Amino acid sequence: MKLATLKDGSRDGQLAVVSRDLKTAHLADGIAPTLQAALDDWAFISPQLSDMYQMLNSGRTSRSFDFDPAKCMAPLPRAFQWADGSAYVNHVELVRKARNADMPASFWEDPLMYQGGSDDFLGPTDEIVLAHEEWGIDFEAEVAVITGDVPMGSTPDQAFQQIRLLMLVNDVSLRNLIPAELAKGFGFLQSKPASSFSPVAVTPDELGDHWQDAKVHLPLRSTWNGKLVGQPHAGVDMVFNFAQLLAHLCKTRNARAGTIIGSGTVSNKDAKRGYSCIAEKRALEMIDDGVASTPFMLFGDTIRIEMLDGAGKSIFGAIDQTVKQAEAKKSR
Amino acid sequence: MKLATLKDGSRDGQLAVVSRDLKTAHLADGIAPTLQAALDDWAFISPQLSDMYQMLNSGRTSRSFDFDPAKCMAPLPRAFQWADGSAYVNHVELVRKARNADMPASFWEDPLMYQGGSDDFLGPTDEIVLAHEEWGIDFEAEVAVITGDVPMGSTPDQAFQQIRLLMLVNDVSLRNLIPAELAKGFGFLQSKPASSFSPVAVTPDELGDHWQDAKVHLPLRSTWNGKLVGQPHAGVDMVFNFAQLLAHLCKTRNARAGTIIGSGTVSNKDAKRGYSCIAEKRALEMIDDGVASTPFMLFGDTIRIEMLDGAGKSIFGAIDQTVKQAEAKKSR
Repeated sequence: MKLATLKDGSRDGQLAVVSRDLKTAHLADGIAPTLQAALDDWAFISPQLSDMYQMLNSGRTSRSFDFDPAKCMAPLPRAFQWADGSAYVNHVELVRKARNADMPASFWEDPLMYQGGSDDFLGPTDEIVLAHEEWGIDFEAEVAVITGDVPMGSTPDQAFQQIRLLMLVNDVSLRNLIPAELAKGFGFLQSKPASSFSPVAVTPDELGDHWQDAKVHLPLRSTWNGKLVGQPHAGVDMVFNFAQLLAHLCKTRNARAGTIIGSGTVSNKDAKRGYSCIAEKRALEMIDDGVASTPFMLFGDTIRIEMLDGAGKSIFGAIDQTVKQAEAKKSR
Repeated sequence: MKLATLKDGSRDGQLAVVSRDLKTAHLADGIAPTLQAALDDWAFISPQLSDMYQMLNSGRTSRSFDFDPAKCMAPLPRAFQWADGSAYVNHVELVRKARNADMPASFWEDPLMYQGGSDDFLGPTDEIVLAHEEWGIDFEAEVAVITGDVPMGSTPDQAFQQIRLLMLVNDVSLRNLIPAELAKGFGFLQSKPASSFSPVAVTPDELGDHWQDAKVHLPLRSTWNGKLVGQPHAGVDMVFNFAQLLAHLCKTRNARAGTIIGSGTVSNKDAKRGYSCIAEKRALEMIDDGVASTPFMLFGDTIRIEMLDGAGKSIFGAIDQTVKQAEAKKSR
């Protein structure tokens, strides 16, 4: 099934069931007010949402309406946890190579993951509002899962059972703030502003055979200013699958329902597949030419992130955003 | 006023107003079901809670009951954001000195802060359940604030206006996992398990003259296995106040209602004040003797963290926890 959260002026929005073809939707208000509420009691709530989904797909609903991604918040407009992995180790290796830094061999066995801010996510078509182009504004196209409760010490197999939903993410990054911030040793804070999510979150069964080994086996398309710049295959070169990433997070603590785990920037060793973030393009330029010639995003730039199924149909709807300058009074 | 969240089997617990002397409480169920709900609509909800607080303190309530910290969850049992500063730079300097690492001079001007996990907090008397003593289990006694909505780019003065409540924190840390994790460059993940919070959160006016310059001017007492090991003054050597920490967080993004900001381990240059975490004691031993002789916490150890007002009365109630080994099937 496919679920969205519609803007209604509230902080958590209103949960809606969306048809498989993303054309119609139905409020889930009689079942659960918000996606977090559904996740909190998934075993009881999800069959009811699934029933509504069946009816919606068959056209047998009385109160359905046209689905409009522009009216969507992030499926979880605010979440209790957002932890982002770097499962496509090729990306990490390239970015490091560009700055002449070797990558520790352990990165192939021990997942890299950071704890991100989760209190203020952007919807799929919300503007990316930032104060300065000089911060080095970049997109990062990723796949993410939303989980149920995962107890401390869970194995990857146990963690796998708690994967409830999948989404796409734009993990917006401020490249020129990253080096100084990481040098301080405590990870990202200012260099990772609000992330954006796809219009709908889908249950794994929606992916059919493309969901295997806790990976999504489809290309992820990034279109920057109207030009397709990347379509790396999310099932290729993903060194740690979502079950492994989740187990890594839970080594010393529980992860509670509504936890979001990101894959990290999707990246293939085959450079012909293009890129899911500008930093990787610039890394390749550095390695090949000694200079990074592609600039980061400018105010007014657009980024569209989407995943199509084998028949060319959008699975999650598109993240489709414009970068905008913050009002002067709010810039610093 | 003083607010607590009582265990009722739900994920977010039940909001209660607690008397100034921490002896009685009254459910806030007619006003707001949870603390997050109160924070989401603070201007409307807080005057009603305040009225109940006045009545409770004057003994004019019909449904009040004895307040029991053992029945408390964390004031926010799960939060949308937990970002922990290191405002007592003395602590950072000592820990670094012990391992012969210089501290960059910028640490005196640019706050160090990490994004923490916030989906599964512990209540004030909940056991600290962990799999291995070998992880190097440590407490960290801190002060924290809970905020309202703080827009991106807010100045410290603007941020200050959004400080709603204060609490105490035990930011449990796994010292022996930290070096390898920080070496990976993405900050803490496994090395910071669930944090614990004081029984009540209090509005700043409860601190009277002890709340000045966005700092709490009182000693923070840490009692380890029944022995008072530290009572550093939280108003001394705090290089960045809570308003500055909050503005730092909001440089590139909004912080939304319910954000928790920690002070970092409270630490004074005057070593006679003792310590708020074992790592600092061990750092002093390394510097003085070349060897750290005080071990980290063992299963069965207790830690009590409390702050008393000028009259010797507990302001927040006590964090009072025991470290316990996780069941074998869940250890890895």
